[in-house]
Amino acid sequence: MDYLNLVQPWAMGPPHTLAKTRIFDLNERRCASPTTPDKVGTFVYLDSPDWINVIALTRGSRVVMIEQFRHGSGEVTLEIPGGMVDPDESPADACLRELREETGYAGKKLDIIGAVSPNPAILNNRCYTGLVRNVTHAGAVELDTNEEIAVRLVPLGEIPDLIRRGVIHHALVICAFHHLLLRD
Amino acid sequence: MDYLNLVQPWAMGPPHTLAKTRIFDLNERRCASPTTPDKVGTFVYLDSPDWINVIALTRGSRVVMIEQFRHGSGEVTLEIPGGMVDPDESPADACLRELREETGYAGKKLDIIGAVSPNPAILNNRCYTGLVRNVTHAGAVELDTNEEIAVRLVPLGEIPDLIRRGVIHHALVICAFHHLLLRD
Repeated sequence: MDYLNLVQPWAMGPPHTLAKTRIFDLNERRCASPTTPDKVGTFVYLDSPDWINVIALTRGSRVVMIEQFRHGSGEVTLEIPGGMVDPDESPADACLRELREETGYAGKKLDIIGAVSPNPAILNNRCYTGLVRNVTHAGAVELDTNEEIAVRLVPLGEIPDLIRRGVIHHALVICAFHHLLLRD
Repeated sequence: MDYLNLVQPWAMGPPHTLAKTRIFDLNERRCASPTTPDKVGTFVYLDSPDWINVIALTRGSRVVMIEQFRHGSGEVTLEIPGGMVDPDESPADACLRELREETGYAGKKLDIIGAVSPNPAILNNRCYTGLVRNVTHAGAVELDTNEEIAVRLVPLGEIPDLIRRGVIHHALVICAFHHLLLRD
């Protein structure tokens, strides 16, 4: 069946920036309904670079994961490496770079196995997931000033139970493992 | 193995609101590293109510889904119903309310089958997923002013292919189906 043909896009006005931060801009824009043109609203959203995360597997099928403190939720989380795609960088290159910087692990062949909208209601970006097998430890981590990260090698077979129990609860990490599951 | 014990939480200062919107506040707060107390940074995050989404299945194993225009990404998406948890409302009640308002479908017994952090780097809330079986059409939809929604009944068996092909790409919707998969 065909999908995504029942509703028409709204006409979007130019963005107006309400606040700029290091990681996104808070914008608003006026939009008009395609079916009821006098229905006009102002909607806020975050203008953000694309993001990536990466499932890196050792030869022994362990996932290279990290524990880190997250400043949004104010808690320590268990995640796969991830971050923002730099300007003029491909999602695949960003995956290999973040893996190397955050964990010290490196790999060669990386496939993009999925892309999701982190939240199409309030964000305009995509998050790409890379998969790289047979990674090896290549050297020390290279953390940003405010990153404090500990590396964990987690057996791939433990992941479903860690998600079920809520130990892994970052939505974008769960999406990454879902795309891996759909591929296998 | 025990997880989430390798890294300590940062000491968080009081929040300062930079901008208020209908759906979240943009806040910042100063945080100090637990291991290097002179390492202090200011971090922005979105202070948001919790969210929910709901997998509603008809007796014929069809998923009650919606197509709608999303003002963040500027595109029409295929999703399960969802929204914000109102003050003094339980996640389960919010699921049944949003299902009824957005699709006209209603059900009785609802189970919360998962909870995720939409993005612990920049958001402080959780998104709960409800599962309700044997829903029936109970009446007209009750949309908010700016909602234009079309209902789709999608066979549950088609969901993996729709995610694989990127027709379904909302991260929180994919997490909902992942928690369903872990349960079944």
